[in-house]
Amino acid sequence: MNHQDTIVALATASGVGAIAIIRLSGDQAIVIADRFFTSIKNNKSLSDQKSHTLHLGRIVDQGRTIDEVLVSVFKNPNSYTGENTIEISCHGSSYIQQEIIQLFIRNGCRMADPGEFTLRAFLNGKLDLSQAEAVADLISSDSEASHQVAMQQMRGGFSNEIKLLREQLLNFASLIELELDFAEEDVEFADRAEFKKLIARIQLVLKRLIDSFAVGNVIKNGIPVAIVGEPNVGKSTLLNALLNEDRAIVSEIAGTTRDAIEDEIIIDGVAFRFIDTAGIRETKDIVESIGIKKTFEKIGLAQVVIYLFDAEKSKVESQKLKVEIEILKNKHPQKKLIIIANKADKISADELAVLKTEIPELIAISAKQKQGIETMTNQLTSLINTGALHNNETIVTNSRHYDALLKALNEINKVDEGTQLGIPSDLLAIDIRESLYYFGLITGEVTNDELLGNIFANFCIGK
Amino acid sequence: MNHQDTIVALATASGVGAIAIIRLSGDQAIVIADRFFTSIKNNKSLSDQKSHTLHLGRIVDQGRTIDEVLVSVFKNPNSYTGENTIEISCHGSSYIQQEIIQLFIRNGCRMADPGEFTLRAFLNGKLDLSQAEAVADLISSDSEASHQVAMQQMRGGFSNEIKLLREQLLNFASLIELELDFAEEDVEFADRAEFKKLIARIQLVLKRLIDSFAVGNVIKNGIPVAIVGEPNVGKSTLLNALLNEDRAIVSEIAGTTRDAIEDEIIIDGVAFRFIDTAGIRETKDIVESIGIKKTFEKIGLAQVVIYLFDAEKSKVESQKLKVEIEILKNKHPQKKLIIIANKADKISADELAVLKTEIPELIAISAKQKQGIETMTNQLTSLINTGALHNNETIVTNSRHYDALLKALNEINKVDEGTQLGIPSDLLAIDIRESLYYFGLITGEVTNDELLGNIFANFCIGK
Repeated sequence: MNHQDTIVALATASGVGAIAIIRLSGDQAIVIADRFFTSIKNNKSLSDQKSHTLHLGRIVDQGRTIDEVLVSVFKNPNSYTGENTIEISCHGSSYIQQEIIQLFIRNGCRMADPGEFTLRAFLNGKLDLSQAEAVADLISSDSEASHQVAMQQMRGGFSNEIKLLREQLLNFASLIELELDFAEEDVEFADRAEFKKLIARIQLVLKRLIDSFAVGNVIKNGIPVAIVGEPNVGKSTLLNALLNEDRAIVSEIAGTTRDAIEDEIIIDGVAFRFIDTAGIRETKDIVESIGIKKTFEKIGLAQVVIYLFDAEKSKVESQKLKVEIEILKNKHPQKKLIIIANKADKISADELAVLKTEIPELIAISAKQKQGIETMTNQLTSLINTGALHNNETIVTNSRHYDALLKALNEINKVDEGTQLGIPSDLLAIDIRESLYYFGLITGEVTNDELLGNIFANFCIGK
Repeated sequence: MNHQDTIVALATASGVGAIAIIRLSGDQAIVIADRFFTSIKNNKSLSDQKSHTLHLGRIVDQGRTIDEVLVSVFKNPNSYTGENTIEISCHGSSYIQQEIIQLFIRNGCRMADPGEFTLRAFLNGKLDLSQAEAVADLISSDSEASHQVAMQQMRGGFSNEIKLLREQLLNFASLIELELDFAEEDVEFADRAEFKKLIARIQLVLKRLIDSFAVGNVIKNGIPVAIVGEPNVGKSTLLNALLNEDRAIVSEIAGTTRDAIEDEIIIDGVAFRFIDTAGIRETKDIVESIGIKKTFEKIGLAQVVIYLFDAEKSKVESQKLKVEIEILKNKHPQKKLIIIANKADKISADELAVLKTEIPELIAISAKQKQGIETMTNQLTSLINTGALHNNETIVTNSRHYDALLKALNEINKVDEGTQLGIPSDLLAIDIRESLYYFGLITGEVTNDELLGNIFANFCIGK
């Protein structure tokens, strides 16, 4: 990869808006922009302007005005990338955006690769690697929780913890390696008692971070919840009550919902992805039976299963319900199950009491009347331990970090064992270096082109 | 309408991008932004910063950091609206965009109405009305031609011409009205010979501008072109050859294209909107006959009709073709007709020569082999007089301006007649004032809330 040239890309969302931002970054960014920028206020070139200033003018190509624009000047190293940077705020027509970008590509700029601005920020030391990754998470955050963890990571909360431990470990590694130089004299520069304390502290932190991934992953990707039950028990109505809008087709005709549709709602800052399915009753209809097969597939993907039944119809057949619930529990022991009696407003309090004796864990609701919905959502959120989130603890959301943390812990455990077994310092040093390697992978002290390529390929162009 | 308060809106395209811009405008814009902005570099408030400067910092609400942002400060009157303006460049997540906008709405800002930033620019004298209207045209411009006319209008090319004439006319109106004060003395302050020359000049300019609307309308809205012909003559293939991509469903089964599909291509800087239709052959298929009815409706909407036939099939039935072409010409005498023999590569040169004797105006092509396409597009562009465009003349694209110009010309013609008939100065003055009124409507010297409401309602929010 060549990161010396000047890159250009649209930085705002694609499509038509009032304004759009085109960003240039690289040594020549200001010089190239100057060739096509004419100030409206004065004759000064952009190169003569101070960093962090804004200038009204025109982008003119061979006498033809492409647009009246506002140009921001950022001078190396005081920019996002750490390079000279120009941001052109133009009218948000797709035509104008393309004309300006193509003008610069014809004149010495290169179209930026995905995430290349952020990659350059990392290469120029403006961000560490986990902070750079948090930028992408922040941009795709769609809930309070995903926003909070991405923001915390981008502000270095996670890196700082890792860097501090790495530094202390590195310090001990150096001392132990120094001992090797004086091997014949049998000296101990590294205080073994202190070293043991550090190892214990690192193990504790790594375990906490590794454990946090369960919540972190949920926060980043949302919690898949399958709603299953026989046709016409009100799955779509429940979904609509939760979504508070009419996305799913609601119909009185049994078996209407043939395609599993997905939608996401945020409850208590966490995204739940609801999967409405075609139910699991026996059928001879081919289309319907494909839907039922999909239902079982969807249960496999879900983390939580809501089993929904019609209280009115089921009051006389609670034995059948109990059997079905048992089947679900046996088939999917890992899934968290919530049992809901819908249309509870259509049965008497006595009838409901009987149902509750049979199925003690059931929650009675009326999706249509929007009754009992809150009890149900409380049950949903209680399944997720968001304590770490609310306590503002560092949460790992990135599977690459999770992987590196697991490997680092594995190495630290080896160091721990080695210390207890009293293995020679040179072998101990090797294990410490291994764990330092995995620490470094997270923050980017250790890196390579392939790793960087994989990380930044998932960014959008322009960031 | 209240235009004293501070408004806020997303200024960039909706959706997720690397960055997004949220704009605040109004007396309190900087003061309100200051309450939630914390500089990263220093302790200075935004109010203490110079206009046209950029500041890195955080948007913090009750201790919670919403985002790290870059804030642009523009001080009254040196901003787009002429008011104090803040532009917040934040990470382009929809969640963050909404959080920041809602934060400001909770704290003294109001959501901007469509086009309200530009409306304020107009009310504060930063733009005249036709320039303000050109901003919307510029944002929606999607071709070189529509961009060029919008840019010319935004830069005041059109207004300046109108304003100069209005000023000269206003000058004469004042002189003539002054004469009324000295009516008993029979003086003539206004030189009648000069006045006649001015009237003639105004008539000339108005006529040219009114005539330019034919081209202007085409540039702004594109030229609708209906492609008609019997099933399976290659309409979809032709459309694809023109579009250079496979949007239409191409099939060997006659009558496949049942829905008229529309697409736009830019030829020589002008947008042509191609309408593919289901053909006009007789049919007993109900679905098909609905398609044919639609074909005739689409011809009604088109400005140009391409009549397409299969050269191979038709070489023996050229009489039938001639009759059909006559019917089309008689039924739609206003439409410009282009006659195309497709699949011309499948007949001999002699056979083609015979066809050309029968139908001299035909153009032979092969849509599949992409032969003769350029001859056809040349024919298309020659139908549109884009001379005014290429001569950089002022072109009227706005139907409101067209309407006002027609009415202004009508009044000027009355003034012209009145002068020739020697009507009394007081009556002449009334007609001049009438025409001045219509001039003023264009540039916004004359205006009212309803007119402004209508114009800016068509803008997007954020501009």
